[in-house]
Amino acid sequence: MRIGAIEAGGTKFVCAVGSRNGEILERSSFPTTTPDETLDQVEAFFREHQVERLGVGAFGPINLRTVSEQYGTIGNTPKMAWRNFPLLQNLRSRLEIPVFIDTDVNVASLGEYNYGVAKDAGSCLYITVGTGIGAGFVQNGNIFQGYDHSEMGHILIQKHPEDDFEGACPSHRICLEGLAAGPAIEARYGKKGMELADQNNVWELEAYYLAQAIMNYFVILSPEKIIIGGGVMKQDKLYPMIRKQFMNLLNDYIEVEDVNQLIVAPELKDNQAVKGAIALTLQD
Amino acid sequence: MRIGAIEAGGTKFVCAVGSRNGEILERSSFPTTTPDETLDQVEAFFREHQVERLGVGAFGPINLRTVSEQYGTIGNTPKMAWRNFPLLQNLRSRLEIPVFIDTDVNVASLGEYNYGVAKDAGSCLYITVGTGIGAGFVQNGNIFQGYDHSEMGHILIQKHPEDDFEGACPSHRICLEGLAAGPAIEARYGKKGMELADQNNVWELEAYYLAQAIMNYFVILSPEKIIIGGGVMKQDKLYPMIRKQFMNLLNDYIEVEDVNQLIVAPELKDNQAVKGAIALTLQD
Ligand SMILES: Nc1ncnc2c1ncn2[C@@H]1O[C@H](COP(=O)(O)OP(=O)(O)O)[C@@H](O)[C@H]1O
Ligand SMILES: Nc1ncnc2c1ncn2[C@@H]1O[C@H](COP(=O)(O)OP(=O)(O)O)[C@@H](O)[C@H]1O
Ligand SMILES: [Zn+2]
Ligand SMILES: [Zn+2]
Repeated sequence: MRIGAIEAGGTKFVCAVGSRNGEILERSSFPTTTPDETLDQVEAFFREHQVERLGVGAFGPINLRTVSEQYGTIGNTPKMAWRNFPLLQNLRSRLEIPVFIDTDVNVASLGEYNYGVAKDAGSCLYITVGTGIGAGFVQNGNIFQGYDHSEMGHILIQKHPEDDFEGACPSHRICLEGLAAGPAIEARYGKKGMELADQNNVWELEAYYLAQAIMNYFVILSPEKIIIGGGVMKQDKLYPMIRKQFMNLLNDYIEVEDVNQLIVAPELKDNQAVKGAIALTLQD
Repeated sequence: MRIGAIEAGGTKFVCAVGSRNGEILERSSFPTTTPDETLDQVEAFFREHQVERLGVGAFGPINLRTVSEQYGTIGNTPKMAWRNFPLLQNLRSRLEIPVFIDTDVNVASLGEYNYGVAKDAGSCLYITVGTGIGAGFVQNGNIFQGYDHSEMGHILIQKHPEDDFEGACPSHRICLEGLAAGPAIEARYGKKGMELADQNNVWELEAYYLAQAIMNYFVILSPEKIIIGGGVMKQDKLYPMIRKQFMNLLNDYIEVEDVNQLIVAPELKDNQAVKGAIALTLQD
């Protein structure tokens, strides 16, 4: 069976065709412009590459309450042209195949759970630290979802006493995303994360925030694996720093057998969302 | 059917007999002493009041990994006599009926979900603010559980800049429980919460911490109802304070239709755990 997958990002769309085992057969990407223009390109791709069903990992916020008439509609995004755009409905009427949708981080988590670093675990939390911070939790093969999808990047944590940055989240200023996403790093130091690679204190502070966030996710969700990806994590010295600070914070309150197995990097490189979107079509 | 229920607390045990609809027919309570002595009393109660099955809401930490050989065994509690006590196994061999077990807050949540303030909701988070802080999440009738049970009281939040209390959690000092449980209030002001009833600033600070915690739970779990109970919440001025601070923190990032319906007091008074323990025997 040929399965379609879309990673619908705020910057670019990735369209792909894959197989049941997560193998990718075709792949194409293009910038996200207006909904009409972008969806025309999606439609063209899937007219050329026929598929039987389609999975989508979408930027958000997106309405995921199955009972809602707005199910699959983009919400209050800063990308004005996409506000209230009925993405799921549009795809269904254009392609006339079954279409499944969830958030980008949720499908990324499902990708790593099914085909990646968490394939032998009973549950995993996938955290992305990039332009924003988000996380998706998969347990027993199912994406966790409450009344609506999670917005885990916006938790509140302790600000470092010596960090006088005022925070970058437009809604909450000093939530996790406001303190630790890529743009927060850039605003705090006036330089991009990449240019700060050799500044140890930058990454110790970053790890200070991410370790706290992981502590909170850990005591609430009790995931078996915690995967951290996204552009900022290209600074891979962050992994040992985060592990160390997390273990200090946790202070043996809950037993962790091997933190190197608990907190890990993703395995699927830039394909976790696309592969997760494939898996999304195969659920139940 | 006559169903047995135990609220196994660190201070006292409550034994009860109830019916399928949550009605309580018999109820008795006694102090928690040694495991042997306490379980003798439990056994005596259920010899006198025969039941077909038994649900237990237990203090913790307790091993709830069904695959584990230690399933139902008390963990690293400060109550030394109870450490490593196989509570579930002991009850099963004494009473020879089916016994179901979960944490006290998880069954309390299940009680309010089935018979209380959340009976018309699809999910609820029950938070108790007492000697400790804990929370249990129920969705679609099932208690949420990750790899092991949650320890939601130990999340990290922002400390108030004018609060110079060093925190009371033995493991994390200034986690939520360390800043906002009953003993933290007592240690910060040198008086019991009850004696501070008329000090507005005490409760504004308490609401400051609880509102942050609720914000974190809300963006992670997206519960439909958030119930706050426990001894500290007897200061019922806290409810409007928490609602207000929560809405300020959330800052419209996620739509809340009516915060008075979202954040509520429990309905089952001191019976949510016992009623939840009854419901626990009726799952699946
Ligand atoms: N090597 C790097 N080191 C530190 N930060 C990086 C690096 N590469 C990218 N970033 C930061 O990651 C963010 C982009 O994250 P990314 O996950 O690539 O995109 P997005 O979140 O938009 O999907 C930017 O803020 C960027 O500065
Ligand atoms: N009226 C009250 N006002 C403020 N705090 C109270 C009040 N009643 C009890 N508390 C506090 O609540 C805590 C006990 O919580 P409770 O839920 O009754 O017991 P537990 O958590 O041990 O099951 C104590 O720290 C006590 O000081
Ligand atoms: Zn935020
Ligand atoms: Zn703690």
